[in-house]
Amino acid sequence: MLRLSTLVCELGGELMGDDLSIERLSPLETAEAGSLSFVSHARFAKLLNGSRASALIIPPSLADQALQRGSCIVVDDVYHYFARLTQFWKKQISVAAPSGIHATAVIDPTASLAEGVSIGPFVHVGQGVRIAQGARLDAHVTVQAQAVVGQDSHIHANVTVGERCIVGQRCIIHSGAVIGADGFGFAPYQGTWIKIEQLGAVRIGDDVEIGANTCIDRGALDDTVIENGVKLDNLVQIGHNVHIGAHSALAGCAGVAGSAHIGAHCTVGGGAVVLGHLKLADHVHISAASVVTRSLLKPGQYSGVFPIDDNASWEKNAATLKQLHALRDRIKRLEQP
Amino acid sequence: MLRLSTLVCELGGELMGDDLSIERLSPLETAEAGSLSFVSHARFAKLLNGSRASALIIPPSLADQALQRGSCIVVDDVYHYFARLTQFWKKQISVAAPSGIHATAVIDPTASLAEGVSIGPFVHVGQGVRIAQGARLDAHVTVQAQAVVGQDSHIHANVTVGERCIVGQRCIIHSGAVIGADGFGFAPYQGTWIKIEQLGAVRIGDDVEIGANTCIDRGALDDTVIENGVKLDNLVQIGHNVHIGAHSALAGCAGVAGSAHIGAHCTVGGGAVVLGHLKLADHVHISAASVVTRSLLKPGQYSGVFPIDDNASWEKNAATLKQLHALRDRIKRLEQP
Amino acid sequence: MLRLSTLVCELGGELMGDDLSIERLSPLETAEAGSLSFVSHARFAKLLNGSRASALIIPPSLADQALQRGSCIVVDDVYHYFARLTQFWKKQISVAAPSGIHATAVIDPTASLAEGVSIGPFVHVGQGVRIAQGARLDAHVTVQAQAVVGQDSHIHANVTVGERCIVGQRCIIHSGAVIGADGFGFAPYQGTWIKIEQLGAVRIGDDVEIGANTCIDRGALDDTVIENGVKLDNLVQIGHNVHIGAHSALAGCAGVAGSAHIGAHCTVGGGAVVLGHLKLADHVHISAASVVTRSLLKPGQYSGVFPIDDNASWEKNAATLKQLHALRDRIKRLEQP
Repeated sequence: MLRLSTLVCELGGELMGDDLSIERLSPLETAEAGSLSFVSHARFAKLLNGSRASALIIPPSLADQALQRGSCIVVDDVYHYFARLTQFWKKQISVAAPSGIHATAVIDPTASLAEGVSIGPFVHVGQGVRIAQGARLDAHVTVQAQAVVGQDSHIHANVTVGERCIVGQRCIIHSGAVIGADGFGFAPYQGTWIKIEQLGAVRIGDDVEIGANTCIDRGALDDTVIENGVKLDNLVQIGHNVHIGAHSALAGCAGVAGSAHIGAHCTVGGGAVVLGHLKLADHVHISAASVVTRSLLKPGQYSGVFPIDDNASWEKNAATLKQLHALRDRIKRLEQP
Repeated sequence: MLRLSTLVCELGGELMGDDLSIERLSPLETAEAGSLSFVSHARFAKLLNGSRASALIIPPSLADQALQRGSCIVVDDVYHYFARLTQFWKKQISVAAPSGIHATAVIDPTASLAEGVSIGPFVHVGQGVRIAQGARLDAHVTVQAQAVVGQDSHIHANVTVGERCIVGQRCIIHSGAVIGADGFGFAPYQGTWIKIEQLGAVRIGDDVEIGANTCIDRGALDDTVIENGVKLDNLVQIGHNVHIGAHSALAGCAGVAGSAHIGAHCTVGGGAVVLGHLKLADHVHISAASVVTRSLLKPGQYSGVFPIDDNASWEKNAATLKQLHALRDRIKRLEQP
Repeated sequence: MLRLSTLVCELGGELMGDDLSIERLSPLETAEAGSLSFVSHARFAKLLNGSRASALIIPPSLADQALQRGSCIVVDDVYHYFARLTQFWKKQISVAAPSGIHATAVIDPTASLAEGVSIGPFVHVGQGVRIAQGARLDAHVTVQAQAVVGQDSHIHANVTVGERCIVGQRCIIHSGAVIGADGFGFAPYQGTWIKIEQLGAVRIGDDVEIGANTCIDRGALDDTVIENGVKLDNLVQIGHNVHIGAHSALAGCAGVAGSAHIGAHCTVGGGAVVLGHLKLADHVHISAASVVTRSLLKPGQYSGVFPIDDNASWEKNAATLKQLHALRDRIKRLEQP
């Protein structure tokens, strides 16, 4: 329970109306008495009056309308304010991780752990590992030899950080993620595959978030690189020697094959695939489930998905698609005088 | 080894022919002496005589034919009977998990564990967690603060159940699944991403099965909800605030983006993607690898997959596809008188 | 640091030029003084002179050119030589896993562990398990009852090997992989799903490599089978009763549905999906992200991906695609005299 004035004091904005106590943050549609909600744009003005929220965060353009129904906090960038509010709120409600090293953790004597780290049950920290100040390793985390976890990074339960991999500062790695498994490299030889040992590592910048069960492979010779501020959702696959530029974001189930180079400020939609050795310029945006089969050197939005349809229609169109090139030739012939 | 009469006594059905001893359950094609197999429909009648199974489970329409070759159990719904038989069989052959709490498990003193729970090696149970009667947690399971595991649920090795998440009764969660990682929520701000803390949880109903390495994210403000009887295969991604209606089933590698609402009794094929904020009515069926880009409000089967072809043909048709709109215009012009 | 003559002595090839000391293996583009690089084909001859590598591995056709710039090792199959070189190099730089059983591991008294095994912290080995000579189980590995791990196999951190599953010799299973979760089998019954217990196991041959967070389900009645020399990348899903023939390779995020039979020497590209019960002949190659919806009984390359385009063009072509069958009819009408 927090007062609106406390929030304004902490996060800024202008409080209009009564200084109410807030019990929870809610979406506009499911808000109830005690809820604080937000309306990010004037175009959602219609939804204001239908909501049961006790208070609203709104842009200046909605102030008059919102004030008629009750208290509000007026801010210029509502969504950004809301993001900061969730961070503040979480700090209030979270139980802090106990600082120190759990009695069951196995820490190699050559590892170096800064003060103020939090190491959970059954954590294994290998030879020569460095864990910086304020870092938190939850239960069952494995950090292998010579790896580094930067200041204030939070490694959730069951994560594996492989040998020599480097995690920057303020990173969040969710449960089950695997950093630094071997890249998929084999030389074909007389009908079999000869393993190419993966001698590189993974270097992860600062403020990177990595989703649950996501995999980032170590490089073959050089390292796989994830730059500052990159956000990867769950179940994402990053192949060896991929380079992802700063502040790019990849949604769930996306896959990036080996040696692809994704620029800065890119977005890749859920389930999209980027083939190996391709280059995406900065500010390239790939729609969900699209397959990138060539380098994309101009910023912009790119798509390639078969449109969904009722099954009977799809079957007809898909069958015809296999004759498309022939149909084109028939059109050509028809066009001849 | 079980006698046919034991099965009939336990599961019903009519035994015809000798009361044989059965050593194993087998598919019709690989059955040998000692095998019990099943034929679910009369249209598979041809396969009967070729099988070496000692006994068969069959529908009434095949009774005469089957009896000529040996013993059989006649039942109305063969496939349902077979499912129950596998359950009975498993009980006979399985070693029961030892009840009690393994000496290595770390259980927070504020957690409440009912009698008859089975807690494996290296399990970590956090503050205020409740584990109901008959629940089983295999090795390396992590259940975080305030989470609940319902009666007779079985959490396999290496699963993470996050803070405040609720698992219903008789659920099965396979190894490596992550329940309650943060949803993928960020506010864009001056070229970077500001984290929106995910304050909701995950609520899972009764009789839900969740596959290996599947991820279900916690909600941003409200909860992510999986209703009773839902079945999720392996490596499925469920985004924050998704709602999946009762008895829907999603096959492997399917992905459902944030705030999508899938109705009851739906099926989603392997590798299919449902984009965010969409609504699927009850009894909607999505073919494998299709991408749902709009709400589907009528029951039915929907598809959208590029048909596979030999590579040379595909290349021609795919290249032509990029001119399809132009081809349509050329057809229009040809149609003009 | 190794001398070129040491490499030639160990791996073969002809040393031409000075016997330099090598500090690292590098790609041609990022090589520096002290680097050993390789050029696999004469068609890359142009890149030779631009590289700062101290020495090169080259085919005989490039020997004259290469020697002008410095030392080189001449071999017939450069890529195969390079693969073997990475293996040799890794042995030099790796810290050997400590042999023996870590004090925290929980080993069932009925399990049988050969001499020379390496068992890491928090490993759990269940009833009747057999671990063969030279096998290595990293931290947090779970091997369930009656499972077998073959000689010299390396099971990385956090892997689960389920009951009765068999892993062959010299296998590598990367972190988070789940071998032997239940297949996805249910009988529909009055609007609900009745579980079909999965009574089979998983049998993995020799020299198989399995990627991080990959899942291989146990069979329903018979076993799921992965033959010798198969390579699976990360986040791959293998359904129950799938059979993968020797030396086939599946790239990241590929999914193979239940009872599919993939031949020997096949390749499946990243994100591709093979539907259930299909058969792929030996030497079938599936392009990335393609969906196999029918059996492919002839060797060859097969593809089926919607070509990516700028979003505006894609929208036009995708919309038109939904009228493709109708367009075909219009072409037919135009063709009528």
